[in-house]
Amino acid sequence: MRRQITGFSNPTVKYLRSLREKKHRKREGKFLAEGLRLLTDARESGRIPEMLIMSSERDEHPLLTALEQAVDRSGGEIVECSAEILSKITGKDNPQAVAGVFAEFDTSLAHLDRSSAKIWLVAQALRDPGNLGTMLRTGDAVGAGGVILIDDCADPFSVEAVRASMGAIFTQEIAQASWDEFIDWLRSGEGQLVAASLRDAQPYRGAPYAAPCFLMVGNESRGLPEEYEMACDLRVTMPMRGRADSLNASVAGAVLAYEALAALDP
Amino acid sequence: MRRQITGFSNPTVKYLRSLREKKHRKREGKFLAEGLRLLTDARESGRIPEMLIMSSERDEHPLLTALEQAVDRSGGEIVECSAEILSKITGKDNPQAVAGVFAEFDTSLAHLDRSSAKIWLVAQALRDPGNLGTMLRTGDAVGAGGVILIDDCADPFSVEAVRASMGAIFTQEIAQASWDEFIDWLRSGEGQLVAASLRDAQPYRGAPYAAPCFLMVGNESRGLPEEYEMACDLRVTMPMRGRADSLNASVAGAVLAYEALAALDP
Repeated sequence: MRRQITGFSNPTVKYLRSLREKKHRKREGKFLAEGLRLLTDARESGRIPEMLIMSSERDEHPLLTALEQAVDRSGGEIVECSAEILSKITGKDNPQAVAGVFAEFDTSLAHLDRSSAKIWLVAQALRDPGNLGTMLRTGDAVGAGGVILIDDCADPFSVEAVRASMGAIFTQEIAQASWDEFIDWLRSGEGQLVAASLRDAQPYRGAPYAAPCFLMVGNESRGLPEEYEMACDLRVTMPMRGRADSLNASVAGAVLAYEALAALDP
Repeated sequence: MRRQITGFSNPTVKYLRSLREKKHRKREGKFLAEGLRLLTDARESGRIPEMLIMSSERDEHPLLTALEQAVDRSGGEIVECSAEILSKITGKDNPQAVAGVFAEFDTSLAHLDRSSAKIWLVAQALRDPGNLGTMLRTGDAVGAGGVILIDDCADPFSVEAVRASMGAIFTQEIAQASWDEFIDWLRSGEGQLVAASLRDAQPYRGAPYAAPCFLMVGNESRGLPEEYEMACDLRVTMPMRGRADSLNASVAGAVLAYEALAALDP
């Protein structure tokens, strides 16, 4: 189905704009992703937007045609509007020529197949959507199964997290759970829980990583609660040669993930 | 010297607010840093603000007292204002209780002592101030000498970069140069230039890193120009097991920096 939107006050524009806010995303169970590259990653991962929004001032592109065809075939809706309206929807001055609305994914722990990958990333109370998106992207790069979000993390379906993930939102599994739910789930099967830690920890290089390996990093300012670290099977630490004793959370996760990758899947 | 500011239209408030914009920072040669932790890192690194701005609603703290004394001793100015005015200065709803104005540092290549560290980070056309700050922070963590910014990078003295650096703006050397200036300077002495690359590259693990080692990452969307990669002494690549073939620029720099650290300074 195709239609044109010409007015800013069109209810579809209001609906799409509302998806930039978490409460509306949760109510609708939908999220927005922007840009031909991201939407192509989605399509190639089998995720087709329910609604495709295109600027009427776009240039033709074979990947865009492929996207339109996929949306048509799956019974989705295609909406055309001016670049100005698209800019209002995405909140960007220079919007990309295309955006899509997706149904939010199942983020229960139950849907994860832990044996499907050797590495999983776990983030605890990660507050910055950019860091969260970056962790998804790193997860994709190391062939992780996905990212598990513990306690009160940023929303992985926010525009910022989706953008920073560079498409990994569509390739990585995502789960959201409280610490108690997570640790119960983890201990119901195989899995080594590893903390990036400064306490009572061994060097991260050459540590005895074992698959499936769950690599956990903590909140940007507070790190991991001591109780969580103590529940880990392995605590590892990275050299800190400077004045500060910390790394950006998504950087720490990536350095650890590449080390585990070298150990588990060289 | 101490004084109180009570009005939003005070010229000092206007001056401080203007430092959030690059053109005003460059004209004045000054930049803003916020928060007791950051300002304490600065003080302990021998960088004392020329002007200290404190909220009159602040709590007493021994580190704040130490900061006031340092500013007094160095002949700087101490300004008190309401939390509301401080919020207007920093552009944050919940400003930290203290901010400082610093003179921008010398960012010429000439002032770098390449033999002072085994690792240096080089960023080419890095556009995101958060990524730039994160690289400074990583540089601090691996004991790098500093970060060299090639071509048109984000401003390291922007509020966002300073914040993301978590104090490393005060501990890492910073240089800004064109590619031609940089390569001339590099080749005028010892130094191995290493590119994070996808072309004609060897695995990053176990590559023959040599100190002083200059680790270069490219622009967030385009990566490094081919010409720059070809001028490198070593091109290394990280495993990419996912759909995408890239990492966040500051993540790639960090994974590489930790590998070089293990090789050069275990």
